[in-house]
Amino acid sequence: MWGLVPVLRLALAQVNPTVGDLLGNAALIREWVSRAAATGADVVCFPEMVLTGYPIEDLALRPSFQSAAREVLAQLAQEIARDGSAHVVIIMGTLDTTSTGQPLNSAVVIQGGEVQATYAKHHLPNYGVFDEFRYFRRGTETLTLNVGGINVGVAICEDLWQDSEPQAWADDLNLLLVLNGSPYERAKDDVRLDLCQRRSQEFGCTLAYVNMVGGQDELVFDGDSLVVDADGTLLARAPQFQEHLLCMDLIFADAENSPSGGLQFEVPPRSPSLFPDPAQALTDNEEVYSALVVGLRDYVNKNGFASVILGLSGGIDSALVAAIACDALGPDRVFGVSMPSAYSSPHSRDDAADLARRCDLHFRTIPLAPFFDTFMAELTLSGLAEENLQARLRGITLMALSNAEGHLVLTTGNKSELAVGYSTIYGDAVGGFAPIKDVPKTLVWDLARWRNQVAVDRGETPPIPTSSIDKPPSAELRPDQLDSDSLPDYEVLDALLDSYVEGDRGAQELVTAGFDRDLVEHVLRLVDAAEYKRRQYPPGTKVTAKAFGRDRRLPITNRWREHHSRD
Amino acid sequence: MWGLVPVLRLALAQVNPTVGDLLGNAALIREWVSRAAATGADVVCFPEMVLTGYPIEDLALRPSFQSAAREVLAQLAQEIARDGSAHVVIIMGTLDTTSTGQPLNSAVVIQGGEVQATYAKHHLPNYGVFDEFRYFRRGTETLTLNVGGINVGVAICEDLWQDSEPQAWADDLNLLLVLNGSPYERAKDDVRLDLCQRRSQEFGCTLAYVNMVGGQDELVFDGDSLVVDADGTLLARAPQFQEHLLCMDLIFADAENSPSGGLQFEVPPRSPSLFPDPAQALTDNEEVYSALVVGLRDYVNKNGFASVILGLSGGIDSALVAAIACDALGPDRVFGVSMPSAYSSPHSRDDAADLARRCDLHFRTIPLAPFFDTFMAELTLSGLAEENLQARLRGITLMALSNAEGHLVLTTGNKSELAVGYSTIYGDAVGGFAPIKDVPKTLVWDLARWRNQVAVDRGETPPIPTSSIDKPPSAELRPDQLDSDSLPDYEVLDALLDSYVEGDRGAQELVTAGFDRDLVEHVLRLVDAAEYKRRQYPPGTKVTAKAFGRDRRLPITNRWREHHSRD
Repeated sequence: MWGLVPVLRLALAQVNPTVGDLLGNAALIREWVSRAAATGADVVCFPEMVLTGYPIEDLALRPSFQSAAREVLAQLAQEIARDGSAHVVIIMGTLDTTSTGQPLNSAVVIQGGEVQATYAKHHLPNYGVFDEFRYFRRGTETLTLNVGGINVGVAICEDLWQDSEPQAWADDLNLLLVLNGSPYERAKDDVRLDLCQRRSQEFGCTLAYVNMVGGQDELVFDGDSLVVDADGTLLARAPQFQEHLLCMDLIFADAENSPSGGLQFEVPPRSPSLFPDPAQALTDNEEVYSALVVGLRDYVNKNGFASVILGLSGGIDSALVAAIACDALGPDRVFGVSMPSAYSSPHSRDDAADLARRCDLHFRTIPLAPFFDTFMAELTLSGLAEENLQARLRGITLMALSNAEGHLVLTTGNKSELAVGYSTIYGDAVGGFAPIKDVPKTLVWDLARWRNQVAVDRGETPPIPTSSIDKPPSAELRPDQLDSDSLPDYEVLDALLDSYVEGDRGAQELVTAGFDRDLVEHVLRLVDAAEYKRRQYPPGTKVTAKAFGRDRRLPITNRWREHHSRD
Repeated sequence: MWGLVPVLRLALAQVNPTVGDLLGNAALIREWVSRAAATGADVVCFPEMVLTGYPIEDLALRPSFQSAAREVLAQLAQEIARDGSAHVVIIMGTLDTTSTGQPLNSAVVIQGGEVQATYAKHHLPNYGVFDEFRYFRRGTETLTLNVGGINVGVAICEDLWQDSEPQAWADDLNLLLVLNGSPYERAKDDVRLDLCQRRSQEFGCTLAYVNMVGGQDELVFDGDSLVVDADGTLLARAPQFQEHLLCMDLIFADAENSPSGGLQFEVPPRSPSLFPDPAQALTDNEEVYSALVVGLRDYVNKNGFASVILGLSGGIDSALVAAIACDALGPDRVFGVSMPSAYSSPHSRDDAADLARRCDLHFRTIPLAPFFDTFMAELTLSGLAEENLQARLRGITLMALSNAEGHLVLTTGNKSELAVGYSTIYGDAVGGFAPIKDVPKTLVWDLARWRNQVAVDRGETPPIPTSSIDKPPSAELRPDQLDSDSLPDYEVLDALLDSYVEGDRGAQELVTAGFDRDLVEHVLRLVDAAEYKRRQYPPGTKVTAKAFGRDRRLPITNRWREHHSRD
């Protein structure tokens, strides 16, 4: 019966490339083509710019990189053919150029040891974290393949997000392949499925969405590759945050036996048998935590660090970062340092040591007193200068250990404190990577509780001491200091920050929404004044809809204050 | 005789607005309109986005800021009318929005207490430091004014740089007003005059170019407003780097007496009498030095700092920064600190003290030994960890004094060391502003010699000790250390860095151009590996064609190495 209608065995290769590593990425692609060929795949589709990694930023403009990408692609096509996979139709993203040397964000079709066709992305995102008008020329041509009687169109990422006619991709389309480099943010997986379902119905064709996984500086890609049919029914879905070959048989009962033109490829007839169950969706906390683990792991590994080091205060932020680091790298690659001062409470020291025992990470204690006393004797300091001095002596100690022993220093600040500037520049802000810089404080607590519960469910020791979660937050830089001395409850603060930072709402709008007028004025002033600190803060994984950094670009020199608008 | 041909008295207001300061900028505009009106100007033209400051980055997207800009503009138009300047035709840049709330980079025409017309920028730059596709919709309409029988078109900045037909701006154009926010870079004034001359000839009309002055974070605007006639002859030119009202009479012998349509304004008949001499061009060193002075001054003043503090090592970099700071702020606002270690040579200490005396700045000495000895006793450090510790103890000391006394810390690193990563993060990299971060080391010496010669020519004490200029450069972090131990001669290094960083040339191309292959490999590796440090470096004034920062955007996680391409 199936012999009468075309069947295509499609493999979506949800892989983790590395920016700039042309030879390494080519080897990765070659390996996954072999794996797909071993399952009998007719077509293998890789993510956007998989050969170069993504986003490559100004590398796109460098002629030496452009020509290296072209050369490596040509070699790769030949190697795949020599591997015995010449018959497989491979679609992958790479950096291409126009005849006049203008960069293109392109998909290439490889078969028979050669590049058979190319497609350049039509819609270039230039908002949020994206700057693609800076790098690429827009493509205007469509690309149609006919694979065993099935009309296949190709699109790249933003092409899918912009409204367009089905004819934008091909006539009589049976299958649209969409290559993506779509960064994770909370709840984006739901939006993504909705979008794929809507577009497949609009276009009247099956739609296969392949996304990369892995971390790249502040971005993490979550995979979540999926296939929906022309009715919008989900046929297959890959797990988030891990490499995966999603291989399945697609049945095209409606396909014309006479192809409608374009590049043609034969496929052997087959009876369909591969129908993988969709991966189970992650819960919200599990998803965010996974993003943080992958973001940190790839920053550390792709940059060649053997280990990480961080200060353990006994508080919730450093405890969560330690747990993430142990999950990302294994506890043997994680080094914790307790640096108590005269203002550190005994329970904080105990909590730091307890955390280290629970996580089984390397731990040492270096009292701050000798350094602090020397500085206080030589420079007469008080107030903020004295508070910041403690944080900076800790920073200098971590950096000394980093230089001496080779660890990457982790910064443990959360998004709420980064927003209001409750962080000491060159103090606790010291570090090469800040795993939770985009995690609001209330979510820090949620993730800590969730991670402990996972341990309980698995019969393991919960990594984070309960008292680190339950005690009132404090910087412990002066006697009896509490965050609540100068900030509202974090539930209120995070709601306000979300509306101002992510929602871009003005003061009047925030007051109308029910926030206290004085609180709005106070918090917005803090956020605006801390811009210079955020500029010198290390990178960290984006998980919200708008992270500090290239997602939100504000001048430092900026006299605009929202409260002016109420005058 | 002049009564027979139209004469227009045009004022170009080369002013220094502040980003976000709508009320302050409105007051500035009002004051300069009054000054122009007092000279009898018919038309006053202000720079691009003068009401909001420029560039405002993501403020452009914030609805509260958009509506505040509209309200302040409407008030300003009325205030100008109340000031008795209702008859003057004023053209200025501001943030406008489409009917659906999309931001526009616009010029508005004010007369009679109201906004009479608007024009939205056609060409949006999205390269280098510019991200205008992120912010603005492109305008498509032209704007034609008829002022006393003279047809006047309006364009904004990038509109002039893109090739276009004269008809893009108006039919039968007599005068094109170009509003600019055009940042300084070396030798741009020459390019700018050439461009204005070429365009005025292409369009067959007089061209008036008005640019802002002043610093905005990493950018400095140099003014250099000018007017050329339809033959390309320079009629008037304002000085660089200072506020200036360039007011002149333009005679339009060819203008038709019957206006060709568009918005019409009357002007009184006059005999032309105002023909100001063009300002004298600055030498290259004078121009760069002025940019550095203005960039620092405006960062300090616009951000509300009373004073600056910096470490004085006796070396050339800190000496030049001190001289710039004294010229920018006056020596009474400049605080120098000598922090000698065991590796500081006696001549370095003497040179630091000599500099302070020559500049008449505040000076103190804080020996590093007590801090250093305490750390070395508690943490066993050697090699790089020991070298970096010294730099970080100096950083912590400057930050403690900044916190205690309120100074902005200046970072004294130059572009060459920032390029190759010869800077200690959280050490000498500490600071809120880095005045010479975009100045290559060879230019540091040139500027120092030039500044001393200026003092000699004026009969003043040269600010920079000769021995700081003449001695071989050293970080003095270990015994007998010299920069030349591990780096080539700075003449060679700077030429190589210029080709790689600004020219974006690949390894093979650099070798072909005559650089030693091993040196190319060594230096490019250093540059690539230092990207993470540059991310956390403070802002500083851009003076070259490509500054580190938003001009050159590269990933930190980046396995591309130029030397791979030779394999």
